[in-house]
Amino acid sequence: MRHLIDPTDLTVRETEQIVALAEDIIANRAKYSESCKGKKLATLFYEPSTRTRLSFTAAMLELGGQVIGFSDANSSSVSKGETVADTVRVIRCFADIIAMRHFKEGAPLVASQYAGVPVINAGDGSHSHPTQTLTDLLTIKREKGRFDNMTIGFCGDLKFGRTVHSLIKALSRYSGIKVILISPEELRLPDYMLHEMSANSKLEFREVRTMEEVMPELDILYMTRVQKERFLDEEEFDRVKNSFVLDPGKLTTAKKDMIILHPLPRVNEITRAVDNDPRAAYFRQVENGKFVRMALIYTLLRWADENKPFERTPVFGEEYIVNEYECTNRRCISATEDVDRLFRRQSDGTCRCAYCEAKARQE
Amino acid sequence: MRHLIDPTDLTVRETEQIVALAEDIIANRAKYSESCKGKKLATLFYEPSTRTRLSFTAAMLELGGQVIGFSDANSSSVSKGETVADTVRVIRCFADIIAMRHFKEGAPLVASQYAGVPVINAGDGSHSHPTQTLTDLLTIKREKGRFDNMTIGFCGDLKFGRTVHSLIKALSRYSGIKVILISPEELRLPDYMLHEMSANSKLEFREVRTMEEVMPELDILYMTRVQKERFLDEEEFDRVKNSFVLDPGKLTTAKKDMIILHPLPRVNEITRAVDNDPRAAYFRQVENGKFVRMALIYTLLRWADENKPFERTPVFGEEYIVNEYECTNRRCISATEDVDRLFRRQSDGTCRCAYCEAKARQE
Amino acid sequence: MRHLIDPTDLTVRETEQIVALAEDIIANRAKYSESCKGKKLATLFYEPSTRTRLSFTAAMLELGGQVIGFSDANSSSVSKGETVADTVRVIRCFADIIAMRHFKEGAPLVASQYAGVPVINAGDGSHSHPTQTLTDLLTIKREKGRFDNMTIGFCGDLKFGRTVHSLIKALSRYSGIKVILISPEELRLPDYMLHEMSANSKLEFREVRTMEEVMPELDILYMTRVQKERFLDEEEFDRVKNSFVLDPGKLTTAKKDMIILHPLPRVNEITRAVDNDPRAAYFRQVENGKFVRMALIYTLLRWADENKPFERTPVFGEEYIVNEYECTNRRCISATEDVDRLFRRQSDGTCRCAYCEAKARQE
Repeated sequence: MRHLIDPTDLTVRETEQIVALAEDIIANRAKYSESCKGKKLATLFYEPSTRTRLSFTAAMLELGGQVIGFSDANSSSVSKGETVADTVRVIRCFADIIAMRHFKEGAPLVASQYAGVPVINAGDGSHSHPTQTLTDLLTIKREKGRFDNMTIGFCGDLKFGRTVHSLIKALSRYSGIKVILISPEELRLPDYMLHEMSANSKLEFREVRTMEEVMPELDILYMTRVQKERFLDEEEFDRVKNSFVLDPGKLTTAKKDMIILHPLPRVNEITRAVDNDPRAAYFRQVENGKFVRMALIYTLLRWADENKPFERTPVFGEEYIVNEYECTNRRCISATEDVDRLFRRQSDGTCRCAYCEAKARQE
Repeated sequence: MRHLIDPTDLTVRETEQIVALAEDIIANRAKYSESCKGKKLATLFYEPSTRTRLSFTAAMLELGGQVIGFSDANSSSVSKGETVADTVRVIRCFADIIAMRHFKEGAPLVASQYAGVPVINAGDGSHSHPTQTLTDLLTIKREKGRFDNMTIGFCGDLKFGRTVHSLIKALSRYSGIKVILISPEELRLPDYMLHEMSANSKLEFREVRTMEEVMPELDILYMTRVQKERFLDEEEFDRVKNSFVLDPGKLTTAKKDMIILHPLPRVNEITRAVDNDPRAAYFRQVENGKFVRMALIYTLLRWADENKPFERTPVFGEEYIVNEYECTNRRCISATEDVDRLFRRQSDGTCRCAYCEAKARQE
Repeated sequence: MRHLIDPTDLTVRETEQIVALAEDIIANRAKYSESCKGKKLATLFYEPSTRTRLSFTAAMLELGGQVIGFSDANSSSVSKGETVADTVRVIRCFADIIAMRHFKEGAPLVASQYAGVPVINAGDGSHSHPTQTLTDLLTIKREKGRFDNMTIGFCGDLKFGRTVHSLIKALSRYSGIKVILISPEELRLPDYMLHEMSANSKLEFREVRTMEEVMPELDILYMTRVQKERFLDEEEFDRVKNSFVLDPGKLTTAKKDMIILHPLPRVNEITRAVDNDPRAAYFRQVENGKFVRMALIYTLLRWADENKPFERTPVFGEEYIVNEYECTNRRCISATEDVDRLFRRQSDGTCRCAYCEAKARQE
């Protein structure tokens, strides 16, 4: 049974197939309007995420299927002491495919072990959000026509921004990719990401502190929100915050065909005046999110029928399952539920929890 | 792009077309059962309103369409700092038409400026609720066969009752309409409404303090709830409250073909014993609400296809957009979001905010 | 108009027809996939119950119908002072059949008096949950092939467990049924149930304190949760709790074709290690719940079309409606809403409220 829990669950070829299918869906809407007739998607949202939930819902309806689910663990009884494992063994009786959003990291992976139907991770804590990565890839393909030979600036919170980490991993599989990391000191990309990028990928990258200094080079500017709460020192936040706000002035030196992406919601890191610039691709990105989810649902249901095996490609050289470790991350599903212990040995010799990717401690 | 934000957005002729379409839908249900197939309605309810939301939902399903949305801003992430403008630019990727309920006055008008798909105001704060007005009109048409030459008593809270204000405005367009305003002193119709009725309409009206004194004259009795909280003086409330409760005794002098309307929910302002009186039309009114929403959704989607222009008719002589004013209403969407400033000059020389209709202050 | 408020609203023959229809639906899925096309189910859930709500939702969708409703009184406005009677008179305009879950006992019975469309009780407080009973019966039929000549052990909380009471009543209609009641002293089956089982049914039964002593006899083991809060004495809870936890060790003496049922959610009263035992039927039971709800919705809609009369069979010798009593149960809908007073005289001379079945007090 194939699931999508982490972007790397898909091989490069499979990812490209899904992106290509999304493009075919866009070109031939009517052809797919009944293609999931009689199928049901369960949207299990343990925390609210209206945008993502409605994107999945619209996607399934446009494939001719139906949707059931809940939008909030509070208005649901599933969180009252019942395990994720039990909940999904119930839901599999009602639905053909599941999209799960959960505040606990790793919950969708646990779900996939018990569901008996395909599970899509619709965001688990601050861990992974693979359909956002597919959305970004479809948008890059449609806007730029290719995945290779590009310079991409990631701007803002690169420390906690899971969509940034995932997109970097996805692009690390292509050649000619140059990544420019634009962030305040406090929100730099984590060391292990930097280490893996140097050690195991052909990505070229560098770190800078302002977007102005690199704007002319960029083919893509990927914006994220810089949150005050991330700073220990409030004065430091006030000092740097304007450097990470995009306005029409900063765009003057940008290429004419650069595109601006943002996973949304934005607060004020992109000013309203930028919205009418043709380079602002973030609202087009939302619609791409729907199309790529249509392609994903369609593909996973087909793979379930065909009993397609898992072909996970190791990323950054990791792999090997071990058992004598324990996860110390309090936000990991393994901290509260009785799950099988799974860990992956990394290229640097450390071991990470398979549910949340936090560093594991030897027992 | 045509929307329905305020009842006066529709011309008299357009309103009558929608009412007539609703009657045709009632007579020929099967003819319309697939007429919105493949279309999606988004019900964006920032505050709960089960009756209105389910009425829209049932309406869209009976047209063969589908519905997505949320029923509460708390179980939704849309309220977390994201502007209405951004939210609707996202939702337009997922739906063909939007029904928005919002606690902020003017939010649906803001939505209509950015949505790119038709927006229906499903109630914004205590400002406007145009589909209730259409519901009232369809009910009057079906029950009485006409819109002119009638005496209508409005009873209860005429100060804050938005449905009363809107229905009076809608009926002011017809001849032979006599309005009797039945309310306690504290809850009289606002002065500006009284002024506009005298100055700019052919409505005949008078104010009274009990329903008994006018019951025999009435063709329609429109009941609303009198809430204790509206009174500064609790003793005053206790003194008057029974005068605004309808019971079978008070109905003895009424015409045999009078009808009783109520926007619902009622609490105790109409006693249970009245429910079985054939003149009690308030539950039939609910079903009319569904039919008129079917007609509205059908019409707005057709107008969107035809790119039908806006033909707003000035009401009570107002109009002219100006900019050098500011709105001081804290419940107005302009108080919290960065929206374009829009005002309308009234016949009395004052200027009102286009979002919430509160009096504007010159800067 | 036929409803399902209590399991005994159905005659034995009607119950068996619904179970047989569910089996036909399982065997011929495609035959029923459009059988409720154009019909709408309203799921009115005044308290969250995700499992039950999604089961009803999936059932209606698999019949080709549509679903509207709410999942929580908090994210709904229906609880704001509006009576159940008024709410269902509104909902009948939007839906063809209603499934109601309510925290007040008797609320679905009140709903059925005003709805004008079939009402299904989806659980009212701790009173009744008839679709769980139908689920249990379908599971017994599919797993064991019969309803008679069986030994059934009910284990755990037999005092408050409404599903246990209902299933005992339903099985009391068959011959050769032996019931073994396995519970701590504090959670014994209520005296009135024991009295009625002796006086009015052909059930054979006995009470024991451990499951081990009866395991070899059982054809069915029906597990329920033992909650700490039910015990006055915490030490007593700690002393007995392990006796009511099912694990693989306790199963060693059980029959090879015994089945284990549980209404779910389970917490830890059945250990995870039991899940892979072929006798564990509780997840199969969930899917049966969907199928029996399909059969029920289909049947009630057909009966509504045919105007089928009510054929309630008195259970345990009760019946006779009287009026000079009052209900003293604070959780009964009659405590907060102005409902008709209905009571039933029991075989032992006492009188019980028709809404909540609490003993009534003579005025």
